[in-house]
Amino acid sequence: MITPSAQAPPVLTIAGSDCSGGAGVQADLKTFCAYGCYGAGAFTALTAQNTTGVEDVHPVPPSFIEKQVEMVLSDIDVKAIKTGMLFDAENTRAVVHSLNSHYTSKRKPPIICDPVCVSTSGHTLLHPDALEVLAHDLFPLTTLITPNKSEAELLLSQNGFPTFIKTVEDMISAASRMILVFASGAVLIKGGHINTSVEEIRSLEEKNPQIRVIRQGLLGDNMEILLISMERIDAAVNPGLVVDVLQERGGETTLFVRPRVESASTHGTGCTLSAAIACSLAHGNSLIGAVESATAYTHLAIETAKPIGKGHGPLNHLHSTSKTLIPSPTTRNPYPFTRYLINNTASSWKAYVEHDFVRLLGKGTLPRSAFNHFIIQDYHYLKYYSRAYGLLAAKSSTYAEIGSATQKVLDILHEINTHETFCQTFGITQEELESTPESTATTAYGGYMIDTGLRGYGEVGLWLKKEASKEGSWVLLENNPYKKWMDDYSGPRYQQAVKLGLDVIEGRALNDPPTPARLDEWRSVWERCTLLEKGFWDAAMEHA
Amino acid sequence: MITPSAQAPPVLTIAGSDCSGGAGVQADLKTFCAYGCYGAGAFTALTAQNTTGVEDVHPVPPSFIEKQVEMVLSDIDVKAIKTGMLFDAENTRAVVHSLNSHYTSKRKPPIICDPVCVSTSGHTLLHPDALEVLAHDLFPLTTLITPNKSEAELLLSQNGFPTFIKTVEDMISAASRMILVFASGAVLIKGGHINTSVEEIRSLEEKNPQIRVIRQGLLGDNMEILLISMERIDAAVNPGLVVDVLQERGGETTLFVRPRVESASTHGTGCTLSAAIACSLAHGNSLIGAVESATAYTHLAIETAKPIGKGHGPLNHLHSTSKTLIPSPTTRNPYPFTRYLINNTASSWKAYVEHDFVRLLGKGTLPRSAFNHFIIQDYHYLKYYSRAYGLLAAKSSTYAEIGSATQKVLDILHEINTHETFCQTFGITQEELESTPESTATTAYGGYMIDTGLRGYGEVGLWLKKEASKEGSWVLLENNPYKKWMDDYSGPRYQQAVKLGLDVIEGRALNDPPTPARLDEWRSVWERCTLLEKGFWDAAMEHA
Repeated sequence: MITPSAQAPPVLTIAGSDCSGGAGVQADLKTFCAYGCYGAGAFTALTAQNTTGVEDVHPVPPSFIEKQVEMVLSDIDVKAIKTGMLFDAENTRAVVHSLNSHYTSKRKPPIICDPVCVSTSGHTLLHPDALEVLAHDLFPLTTLITPNKSEAELLLSQNGFPTFIKTVEDMISAASRMILVFASGAVLIKGGHINTSVEEIRSLEEKNPQIRVIRQGLLGDNMEILLISMERIDAAVNPGLVVDVLQERGGETTLFVRPRVESASTHGTGCTLSAAIACSLAHGNSLIGAVESATAYTHLAIETAKPIGKGHGPLNHLHSTSKTLIPSPTTRNPYPFTRYLINNTASSWKAYVEHDFVRLLGKGTLPRSAFNHFIIQDYHYLKYYSRAYGLLAAKSSTYAEIGSATQKVLDILHEINTHETFCQTFGITQEELESTPESTATTAYGGYMIDTGLRGYGEVGLWLKKEASKEGSWVLLENNPYKKWMDDYSGPRYQQAVKLGLDVIEGRALNDPPTPARLDEWRSVWERCTLLEKGFWDAAMEHA
Repeated sequence: MITPSAQAPPVLTIAGSDCSGGAGVQADLKTFCAYGCYGAGAFTALTAQNTTGVEDVHPVPPSFIEKQVEMVLSDIDVKAIKTGMLFDAENTRAVVHSLNSHYTSKRKPPIICDPVCVSTSGHTLLHPDALEVLAHDLFPLTTLITPNKSEAELLLSQNGFPTFIKTVEDMISAASRMILVFASGAVLIKGGHINTSVEEIRSLEEKNPQIRVIRQGLLGDNMEILLISMERIDAAVNPGLVVDVLQERGGETTLFVRPRVESASTHGTGCTLSAAIACSLAHGNSLIGAVESATAYTHLAIETAKPIGKGHGPLNHLHSTSKTLIPSPTTRNPYPFTRYLINNTASSWKAYVEHDFVRLLGKGTLPRSAFNHFIIQDYHYLKYYSRAYGLLAAKSSTYAEIGSATQKVLDILHEINTHETFCQTFGITQEELESTPESTATTAYGGYMIDTGLRGYGEVGLWLKKEASKEGSWVLLENNPYKKWMDDYSGPRYQQAVKLGLDVIEGRALNDPPTPARLDEWRSVWERCTLLEKGFWDAAMEHA
């Protein structure tokens, strides 16, 4: 759901605070993070509570509620809004007023209203006199309201339809009734307190073929294999079920069915669900898609929660969130992955780039014998190198990747051509080039390269160029017998090839972010390549 | 930083609310999420503000502040605490009182105090009379205080040391002075408003060798290669710098140096930094490690932020957060990855598991010729299969992986042995087994298996077993010539091998979570394997 380069859609919650972090605005903001949304949060009331219960409530003055909502909506292009605990009639009116004054035909983000009345622990979070304001003033603004069993009963009874919900059929009738009685766009009755079974849902489906059933986290056909390590197979095949019933104004009824989780970690379930629906809508999903995503998210948040506190603990809001180790590229840091590799292999990298071979070459005093050994071995090595990119082309799955690997092969062939010309000027014949045996360093490095595909001459060329540009530099530019070599590797053609290589490596790290273990593997591959390149020069110096 | 299976360490923020989401408790909670911490948040004040400024402040009554902190600390095992905006003397006293009453020698989580005095937009967030309470009552409880330039100046001046901070040297003296004047464990003076340069830091380092300098996000030696696509290379090599100065009570001075980012997205920088330090400490890091992590996190949050709102926009708190597509295994869903694969290739999987070949085999009416063709080809196929696991062993990097791959090879060899015995009872000789040529289906599938390593007979065996257990089942159990085959694949030995295979696949998905592209690739590999297994049976049926 998170695409790091995209703008996070802003979502606003207008609700109460749960200082212990499991419910209210705190739970909403965590859910917004999990969904990759930008979270804003205005308060209607504060509570002093924890997992064992609500100790006290501090309502926020209505005028201050309006100011908060006004500040958010006048500045930030909010893509969805959810409301939670509203506390009393006055505060509910303040919320309605502030929403109304910012709603125009042009700007009308969806509003999800979670009609919070009573806390899990039994504390009243909405004064009875607020029910009418909720029903008559807030509901008409909403895309969806999300009552649980008791809230649906209370709202319907309050409006002249005494209702008791005991079965899934009761939930379906109550949801249809609510659509008639209230002016919300849709109703989702949450069935956390109603037990049902696979059979009951199947028979309901047969009797009412117009009802759509979305099964979530249930074992489907031909999944016996997944039960292999379970102790209570019956419970897994035929679990107690939970159903949420979505009734849309157009008439569509959808059931969201999933296994019941026996857990004490349910504090803030309703807050989390409505926040997740708001996020999914803000990302542009349909209402059914949003409810499907949000119920699955909330289910997993309960199932994966670890106990916190002494009572009903919070959900695990971060169950599907992980940390990327390489930051996204920015203007200032366009190659974060390569930078990580260099930073974390700094001494090997420096030993290679600033090798005596390079220094003597820069001074122009490198013995010809050492250079000749090097250039002949490099000629052999380039064969491995081009073959490595051929292999990469063969292994690539997109035309773009095949194209850039092929371009690298062409670049290497060009480099080989330069080598041949260059060797001629040094009196090395084509026959000598072909016949001189590969040294151990060349063979080892070539074989390793087939697996990896990195090369650091670009850095060597640029380092020499930088050193040469300093006042009184030790680098000899004129009459240096190796000038052409230096110019080639710091020149635009080779540097363009380096850039292409960097783009490939960085793209891979960005599109398939490494885990800590894989990052460390990559780092050690990079370091071994660097040391093998260094070994190349060590071998040449032995011929000095 | 996030390890999904570990408990998220709880962290508490005691601060103000910024309804627009960029600063205060909202920014803290987002930072807690990014660091994989469980967030709790108690309020000292609410603000009505947005990116352009603070419109109004609603202070929370001191007694209610105490109740909130009390509810959190009496229930949740908090691993670190940060304080932000405290508003006035009374509220600061309430915070101190509630912290004191929960601090014992046994339970003493680190406290980070961000002495918020004035908002970025210039609004007073701490009454002057609170400065004394802050300094004399709160600071002694803290592990670290994190003033910016103006706050450090104000606090020192207020305590009899008129101070003006203009340079990094001023920051260093002020930090040393603060350690003498105040009783906090350490002081971090934030240098966001002080300009410095690479040269100044270098010369400071030479003059004061006892000062430790931690360079972050700066181009190191031999990184010319990373500048390849930059337009303004000078600015990258020699950027304006920002420095934060950490002074510890033991005497150690550490500078955290990084390039200055010119950005309007700085709203909530101080809140984010102190929240990140608290998180890193809660994860068990040292103070220097925590400041290093937090400054890097905050720097990237500014650098990667996209504009939100009309004024100073918020940071990008989620820059290093990504979404995992496969949920973590739970008791109810121990094989979430395999489940995903089966769910998303349902029709191919069903066509394979419930193939006519399997149905006729279950009924006992499968023509012997079809079965013989199948069993001989399966004999060939198992060779590929065992070799595939040999390859996996060769490619594994841990002894555990090598061990489980090798165990698979042994399981397959056992299966081959069963085949040989089985074939004998069907009148197929060992010579016939070895000499019958491989069919195309076998070769294709075998080759494919080398790359992948999946097999579904376990499901087929279990499906037949399940069907057989139904009343009036079509499956013939007694006198079925293929009974032994069915028993083998639904029996404990083969199922144990399947479990091993599932564990390997699931472990891989858990330790190296796939990106959307890779997940889809895995899905299509799974589906192709399933269809090739089906092709195996199609081929056998042609011999019926």
